[in-house]
Amino acid sequence: MKTDPVRLARAYLLRVAEPPAPSLVALINEEGPVRAAELVRRGAVAEETAARCHLDLAEQDLARADARGARLLTPEDPDWPGWQLLSLRAARTRGVPGMVEPIALWFKGSMPLNELVDRAVAVVGARAATGYGDHVANEFGFGLAERQVAVVSGAAYGVDGAAHRGALAAGWTTLAVLGCGVDVGYPVRHTDLLQRIAEHGAVVSEYPPGTPPARHRFLVRNRLIAALGAGTVVVEAGRRSGARNTASTAHSLGKPVMAVPGPITSAMSVGCHDLLRSGVAAPVCSVDEVVEAIGRIGTDLAPREPGPQRPTDGLDPVVLRVHEALNTGLGLSPDQVSVESGVPLDRVRAALPQLELAGLAVRKDTGWCAALGRMGTSSSSRCGGA
Amino acid sequence: MKTDPVRLARAYLLRVAEPPAPSLVALINEEGPVRAAELVRRGAVAEETAARCHLDLAEQDLARADARGARLLTPEDPDWPGWQLLSLRAARTRGVPGMVEPIALWFKGSMPLNELVDRAVAVVGARAATGYGDHVANEFGFGLAERQVAVVSGAAYGVDGAAHRGALAAGWTTLAVLGCGVDVGYPVRHTDLLQRIAEHGAVVSEYPPGTPPARHRFLVRNRLIAALGAGTVVVEAGRRSGARNTASTAHSLGKPVMAVPGPITSAMSVGCHDLLRSGVAAPVCSVDEVVEAIGRIGTDLAPREPGPQRPTDGLDPVVLRVHEALNTGLGLSPDQVSVESGVPLDRVRAALPQLELAGLAVRKDTGWCAALGRMGTSSSSRCGGA
Repeated sequence: MKTDPVRLARAYLLRVAEPPAPSLVALINEEGPVRAAELVRRGAVAEETAARCHLDLAEQDLARADARGARLLTPEDPDWPGWQLLSLRAARTRGVPGMVEPIALWFKGSMPLNELVDRAVAVVGARAATGYGDHVANEFGFGLAERQVAVVSGAAYGVDGAAHRGALAAGWTTLAVLGCGVDVGYPVRHTDLLQRIAEHGAVVSEYPPGTPPARHRFLVRNRLIAALGAGTVVVEAGRRSGARNTASTAHSLGKPVMAVPGPITSAMSVGCHDLLRSGVAAPVCSVDEVVEAIGRIGTDLAPREPGPQRPTDGLDPVVLRVHEALNTGLGLSPDQVSVESGVPLDRVRAALPQLELAGLAVRKDTGWCAALGRMGTSSSSRCGGA
Repeated sequence: MKTDPVRLARAYLLRVAEPPAPSLVALINEEGPVRAAELVRRGAVAEETAARCHLDLAEQDLARADARGARLLTPEDPDWPGWQLLSLRAARTRGVPGMVEPIALWFKGSMPLNELVDRAVAVVGARAATGYGDHVANEFGFGLAERQVAVVSGAAYGVDGAAHRGALAAGWTTLAVLGCGVDVGYPVRHTDLLQRIAEHGAVVSEYPPGTPPARHRFLVRNRLIAALGAGTVVVEAGRRSGARNTASTAHSLGKPVMAVPGPITSAMSVGCHDLLRSGVAAPVCSVDEVVEAIGRIGTDLAPREPGPQRPTDGLDPVVLRVHEALNTGLGLSPDQVSVESGVPLDRVRAALPQLELAGLAVRKDTGWCAALGRMGTSSSSRCGGA
């Protein structure tokens, strides 16, 4: 079976250039992938391709991917997430450096990528997450999954892993974007997790099979996480966490950035608080608030939780003052209530029966006393004299 | 010794009206306190004064205060904090209801109130503070005191008390504003604390000696806390905490409102996060950030904490890629480094000696290897072959 020349060309170009490769991508956009590959072989965009243009490993990479259950996903495929990745091109047009769309993606997964990211949010954070960060990431992953929102993240220890596990626990899809080959199994103790993610969602990478992880690759990869989510949530981040890089990228892509507040005594929340203080991120405290931020106006509004109700809720302020004056522990005459509360006598006389009806006052032999109201134990009163 | 008639008039008016008494205060502003007191005795502003206008306890209240080491502080006194309280009148002029300046203040303290609040910040929060809230309030009280900023707060358990104790521990002044008489000793377990506050700062109240606490009085009192601080910090607040009332009052007075982020899993941080989400408050994570928010531009800027330094900081991104490529655990030739990193060979040849000088690369028999750099243990290398 002869492989499609476009697919071969893109596999070759992914191997040749270290992303982001703005000049190469510009060449591909102009000339098409097949012609661009030819030009690169002849020495075009040397700065980005000279070091590796002799590496013609396209067939081998495709075969290796196939052997590992992976495949190449290209912009020509129907499941290419073109809409989400368009945000990169738009930002580049606005002059944001490094915002280069991927030439193609190595893909290992169980559902079409464009469907997976149709409703997705990036959940990122520190590798050295605290118990709090792990807990929140896991809860958010689970809660987003319950609302049929996919998680997009890396595959690091800490927040990334906890968010994925939350989504998997809820039986929903999740997406890991790697800074190494999809077959590399990094980090080591996440090999099984990556397998589970691929089975229930997808694992993708720009880097050809076998590419080892490197710090700059994680940073470059972050732009894909930011682009593939409708927004980015930073759960925990130290002062120099890579998650802050993802957050600022999402911000420059014009997507909502959210940060989870945490204890100011925790070094792992410093990055979140910096994002909040600088105005890059809005605070989010619940999954509903995340969904509201990325959602369509009017359809995904977070419910406003009411506070605890008190029996005195809704009372006129003057009636409330009358009620407070009854809390002396003694029975009072209306005159005494008037002086105590500073409320004129005629209004006290009107308020007392109203409070009695609400179960908030009782008339005893010694005079008027406060009661706890219909929502409390309405029979008990605060009248010491009774 | 005959008491000043102005002082007597104000003492009488404080006893007669339950604050805030906007019509009475308007009358005082128009007619002066002595004439206003006469008019009230004859039935003026009946809605606000009818219930108590017969209570002519001015002499007794002044004597009772004197016996408890307190006195009446009036707008005619040189230590009246007129500048701070002006914010109430300004807000009332803008149509904010309830923003009424006090007729006078019962004062028990050791330093002039105007000096005490010259540089002061309100630190407020939940009575049912968590260990985290207590810790932060105490640290903030201490840290503000170290920067010669006085704390203004209530006297409740939880955040109020912790903030005062922090300030006292640092040997600075602090101010408690009460919702009961300055002699009432409420809450009971804070009687000693209130005595310490009076000895090292001041305890003030609009309410005459002996006035019992009441919920509406705490809410009315909150406007004074908000007005007397240059800004308000909410350390912890439940969904219905009174501290939120102080925060929104400070906001309507046009003063900076700050909220301390906390764990989103804590019910005692819900109020703070609501204030952050609604945009009423800005997040603060340190005393320096509080001082910056209330301070004079340019003189009180919080120091920006640098993150931890890495030996690779400041490297050109391309040089950094070359450095990352050395992390294979094997010695590499410049050609191999070029392919690994995707950086053209000539630039690899320029970068390697640069990395060697920085202690980040070593040339061994097997080829080039990464080293940890001058800031780490520069002698160790990550070259498996050496």
